[in-house]
Amino acid sequence: MAGNSLGTIFRLTTFGESHGTAIGGIVDGCPAGLELTQEDIQVQLDRRKPGQSALTTSRNESDTLQLLSGVFEGKTTGTSIGFLIPNKDQRSKDYSNLKDIYRPSHADFTYDKKYGIRDFRGGGRASARETANWVVGGAIAQKVISTAEIKISAYVSQVGTEEFAHNNRFYPEKETDSNAVRCPSEEAAQRMQQFIENVKSEGDSIGGKIQVIIRNASLGLGRPIFKKLHADLAQALFTINAVKAVEFGIGTAAAVKKGSEQNDAFNQIGEKTETTSNNSGGIQGGISNGEDITITITFKPPATILQEQKTIDKAGNNVKFSAEGRHDPCVVPRAVPVVQAMCAMVLADHLLLARTDKI
Amino acid sequence: MAGNSLGTIFRLTTFGESHGTAIGGIVDGCPAGLELTQEDIQVQLDRRKPGQSALTTSRNESDTLQLLSGVFEGKTTGTSIGFLIPNKDQRSKDYSNLKDIYRPSHADFTYDKKYGIRDFRGGGRASARETANWVVGGAIAQKVISTAEIKISAYVSQVGTEEFAHNNRFYPEKETDSNAVRCPSEEAAQRMQQFIENVKSEGDSIGGKIQVIIRNASLGLGRPIFKKLHADLAQALFTINAVKAVEFGIGTAAAVKKGSEQNDAFNQIGEKTETTSNNSGGIQGGISNGEDITITITFKPPATILQEQKTIDKAGNNVKFSAEGRHDPCVVPRAVPVVQAMCAMVLADHLLLARTDKI
Amino acid sequence: MAGNSLGTIFRLTTFGESHGTAIGGIVDGCPAGLELTQEDIQVQLDRRKPGQSALTTSRNESDTLQLLSGVFEGKTTGTSIGFLIPNKDQRSKDYSNLKDIYRPSHADFTYDKKYGIRDFRGGGRASARETANWVVGGAIAQKVISTAEIKISAYVSQVGTEEFAHNNRFYPEKETDSNAVRCPSEEAAQRMQQFIENVKSEGDSIGGKIQVIIRNASLGLGRPIFKKLHADLAQALFTINAVKAVEFGIGTAAAVKKGSEQNDAFNQIGEKTETTSNNSGGIQGGISNGEDITITITFKPPATILQEQKTIDKAGNNVKFSAEGRHDPCVVPRAVPVVQAMCAMVLADHLLLARTDKI
Amino acid sequence: MAGNSLGTIFRLTTFGESHGTAIGGIVDGCPAGLELTQEDIQVQLDRRKPGQSALTTSRNESDTLQLLSGVFEGKTTGTSIGFLIPNKDQRSKDYSNLKDIYRPSHADFTYDKKYGIRDFRGGGRASARETANWVVGGAIAQKVISTAEIKISAYVSQVGTEEFAHNNRFYPEKETDSNAVRCPSEEAAQRMQQFIENVKSEGDSIGGKIQVIIRNASLGLGRPIFKKLHADLAQALFTINAVKAVEFGIGTAAAVKKGSEQNDAFNQIGEKTETTSNNSGGIQGGISNGEDITITITFKPPATILQEQKTIDKAGNNVKFSAEGRHDPCVVPRAVPVVQAMCAMVLADHLLLARTDKI
Repeated sequence: MAGNSLGTIFRLTTFGESHGTAIGGIVDGCPAGLELTQEDIQVQLDRRKPGQSALTTSRNESDTLQLLSGVFEGKTTGTSIGFLIPNKDQRSKDYSNLKDIYRPSHADFTYDKKYGIRDFRGGGRASARETANWVVGGAIAQKVISTAEIKISAYVSQVGTEEFAHNNRFYPEKETDSNAVRCPSEEAAQRMQQFIENVKSEGDSIGGKIQVIIRNASLGLGRPIFKKLHADLAQALFTINAVKAVEFGIGTAAAVKKGSEQNDAFNQIGEKTETTSNNSGGIQGGISNGEDITITITFKPPATILQEQKTIDKAGNNVKFSAEGRHDPCVVPRAVPVVQAMCAMVLADHLLLARTDKI
Repeated sequence: MAGNSLGTIFRLTTFGESHGTAIGGIVDGCPAGLELTQEDIQVQLDRRKPGQSALTTSRNESDTLQLLSGVFEGKTTGTSIGFLIPNKDQRSKDYSNLKDIYRPSHADFTYDKKYGIRDFRGGGRASARETANWVVGGAIAQKVISTAEIKISAYVSQVGTEEFAHNNRFYPEKETDSNAVRCPSEEAAQRMQQFIENVKSEGDSIGGKIQVIIRNASLGLGRPIFKKLHADLAQALFTINAVKAVEFGIGTAAAVKKGSEQNDAFNQIGEKTETTSNNSGGIQGGISNGEDITITITFKPPATILQEQKTIDKAGNNVKFSAEGRHDPCVVPRAVPVVQAMCAMVLADHLLLARTDKI
Repeated sequence: MAGNSLGTIFRLTTFGESHGTAIGGIVDGCPAGLELTQEDIQVQLDRRKPGQSALTTSRNESDTLQLLSGVFEGKTTGTSIGFLIPNKDQRSKDYSNLKDIYRPSHADFTYDKKYGIRDFRGGGRASARETANWVVGGAIAQKVISTAEIKISAYVSQVGTEEFAHNNRFYPEKETDSNAVRCPSEEAAQRMQQFIENVKSEGDSIGGKIQVIIRNASLGLGRPIFKKLHADLAQALFTINAVKAVEFGIGTAAAVKKGSEQNDAFNQIGEKTETTSNNSGGIQGGISNGEDITITITFKPPATILQEQKTIDKAGNNVKFSAEGRHDPCVVPRAVPVVQAMCAMVLADHLLLARTDKI
Repeated sequence: MAGNSLGTIFRLTTFGESHGTAIGGIVDGCPAGLELTQEDIQVQLDRRKPGQSALTTSRNESDTLQLLSGVFEGKTTGTSIGFLIPNKDQRSKDYSNLKDIYRPSHADFTYDKKYGIRDFRGGGRASARETANWVVGGAIAQKVISTAEIKISAYVSQVGTEEFAHNNRFYPEKETDSNAVRCPSEEAAQRMQQFIENVKSEGDSIGGKIQVIIRNASLGLGRPIFKKLHADLAQALFTINAVKAVEFGIGTAAAVKKGSEQNDAFNQIGEKTETTSNNSGGIQGGISNGEDITITITFKPPATILQEQKTIDKAGNNVKFSAEGRHDPCVVPRAVPVVQAMCAMVLADHLLLARTDKI
């Protein structure tokens, strides 16, 4: 089955190698009548682009969106939305050093073995550049879910051993973006920034975590049995390069909890039903219960480091490899808008699907 | 979109409420010519059924499979395989106490709000009884993947605070099933059993973890971009009732790792390519690399406890609720075959899909 | 990809060989809150069953529906609806004469070559008995579309050379079912009946046509580009055994029409937009325009005839073959409820899908 | 559900309005290792483009393909293939006369009612310009199926009342393209050409038929029950603008046939199984039997004619409308490569799917 599509009602399909002419995609199933401008999307692309701070790669890709169809006089028409992001200067670099080598913990080896052929320039289809396509789809999806007042907050909650005690608090984008780390606590952000700079100075990289809080997720999103809301969210989030763990609500800590501690008691206050705790993370039986949906996502450190590593070449020789150039020592700050985009697309799909729940 | 199907090439579709006449399903896309007997499936169903030990609910459901189509003279014919598992004595009990109440951390509330109607008897469609259907699909999928020598080991690695230091070791089924906890270490199993019994005596429940090791996953399973092998595995695993976290390889520990520690160096020994560590958990770029696929799954404690809890009724009144009868105080021992089943179905789907990789 | 499912939002998945224990299926995606009884479905099954008149096979299958899930206290719950139709006396007959022979224009040969194995009893999965499953799905779909006042009229318009000049008139079910042929003109029905009886007396069979008129198909059903309403209707109708042609509106006659004759001029009468002709058959650009949807379906004669025919056996020998027993000499009278069912399922799917058209 | 994708294993997704910046699409699921050049595709695009003869519209769109990804060093890589076809001079024309009018038998009315908004320039998404995208997908699919020696012949068999007695003969492309009508008989082509010119001189348009012969369709393509090969072919063919009927084998003539005439007797000659007639059109039980697949497709006359017609405007006023500019008086000559493309995509999908038939 074709593997480059996400979603059923609201569906993104993408293409593009990091060093071809362009990357791009098609958003299909976006409802007609949604106000949408190129700028709505560009602002999210700019949040993802490299070169935003000393913490991220200083390559200066300018990700300029070209919106090609599906929008007319400022509104979506219900037809498919095609878009393009040209790759700049993609042919200027010499990638011959990557042609015959399998970099450790990259997808070079698996692509080559699976397909017998591989575009080795800059990671090809497995490059994180692809995430720009997802940010476009996510920006459109955000417009869809905003019609139901659904809001997504995502921020960095951990870099290496430096943590931020977030208590699942919802922060608006202007607070999460107030520093280069995208952690809404200035104090924690500084600790994290120092950690990243130390690692970078060693030619090394570091992992981290992103916290997501989804507010106003309409009661009743998700579908039994095999389209549970959190299962689809997890599927989308594990799509992001370097993600090693996804947790909902209390997550891995649930293993040591008793039912009497874990259960979220219902409480009725006037017209409003709420739960007195939110260990479930806003989803029960795969269906949103109206509380905040809380997700914790763990990223491994970027595989590309400047230190010399042992690996093999295509012919099966054990060789040494050192990466060159400039690379992100920590992926989580730039991954924040990508995480938001994936959540937004899954939510938009389920929001539209929920229109078919009842007769 | 319909939500009761899993998979694209190899696809399971299911139906059934816990207290209707029967549950059942259809396995579609199973290749022709596979040797398959009713007994192959029944043996896995028996591993899941309640009443196997003092640790699990003593309800005595006898899950007797009826295979209705798609198999002829001991072999699959390529047509869809229909099956049925009758519910025994399902009408004998009085469920009127559940009719108007929303049990804490159950799906009663969300189903009712989503659909405006709910079969309140025994959890309805949200009941864990549905997992018997998955075990049937999984048993057929196991036959499919066994043709490629793929083997799945799953066992309990944690109950409450009692852990088993497994080092991602592969244990055959007869070792994981050698005790009631389904932990291959007798010493750890006894600690866990004691923990469960203590919790049970308090009328409470406890969470836990299951470890999965998939051996011989053919190099090249999984598909860029949105059908990554681990993303599809996670989607299937989060489908299982009570799962709160899914981790691959080093999982949440990746957050504190440096690239120089995390990266899995390739090493060539004669004809064989291996990695000197397996922090990635056998998957790179969404595609299996031939190493063991390692997964850690965290389950919350069962929501049903005998202690009195605060909740609300359908009319919005704050009320007290105490569960009656016999319930599993810990879900992980019985969840082991369910976890295996979900993994087997995803692997069978990707194994067949991989036949279309190259021209 | 699995091939036993029809539809995306409203989806039927089926199983069953004609001579296994039972056939059955699952309707997934039916909205909650729809009033539905076993009787609603049984009445359509009874219209399809054999032995209704001298014109059809006198085998006395009693197709008794067992509804297993998804309905509670007379209403659908939004969960999947499982159903079963037991096969009666299916093991009593000796099918050994079909084991090694490929009957002309049956699917024996293609199934055997494709899968290398085949359930030879009574046509196996390719048997028209499968259409009973579709009638169940269709009866549920009819309840869905009736909420939008959509009505389907289907009747026999031709048997052999005997035609009925129907002028695309809509006839209610009680008129189409007023005779054994299911042609609403008594005069034409008698001509057709005589034709069938003559053919039957020769041990031969005959083809025919069914006309469909869909009334009140909501304006706006169907979706550009690859889910056009008529394309999906055609896909479903060609699924029916023996269908050789599907035409919309003026159909094959369009080849000799000029644009000035063919075009359907819009005409506004007060609030109502109509077209002064309906050569398009109610669909423009793949989307329903509010006029009647008109479809003509051609069926070939049943392949099973009592005359001796030349064919081959499994070993590749040229042999003679004569069918035994009682068989329908003409399929169109019994195909009427099957045609209705297929149309109803496609319309229900598109009706639900159309809820996602606009923001 | 998103509606701009065709296929499951081999899948084309498209976008683009006729008068936006560009149209384009993504081919997903094409196997790796297929030799593919831009020229392979361009040659088919050139067969479809307008302005090829006096018979077709003299607009001079130059459809220049831009291949953006998925091909490396002359071979497909297994990743998604993105492509673009820029629209030339698309903004130069004044379409304000189409803004508020619903042209008869066009999709203006249905799009507007369905979505509440419509890109009125040149037909928007409903324009036949979209078929250029399909030709790209089809050209890639042709490369896939050519690896199994599958060949598609398509040619014009009827224009108005002028017919060509083709006897389902297979003609290679150089013979079908030897004249402007794309009818392989020079004599018939001249009759058809005269017919078209007469109609054109009246400011009118005319319908026609295309015949398809698919040779070497591997025995065993197609899948029971709901993915029958001819059902999927019909779905794809009805997607083409102006198609009103699709027939397989003997088609509508089957209605008057007896079983003894219609049945295709098997005949064994040495190692080869053949049928002595081919009334079934190469498919039995939805699965190809190795004989030629024969399809007849009827096209209505183009809706755009220069004669004055009655219609309504957006405000519901009855008005007169006359099209301007240059338009195809008959669509079938240019539709030939489009028909081939649709067939090729369905066959490629089923050819890959068939790899999963047996264990």
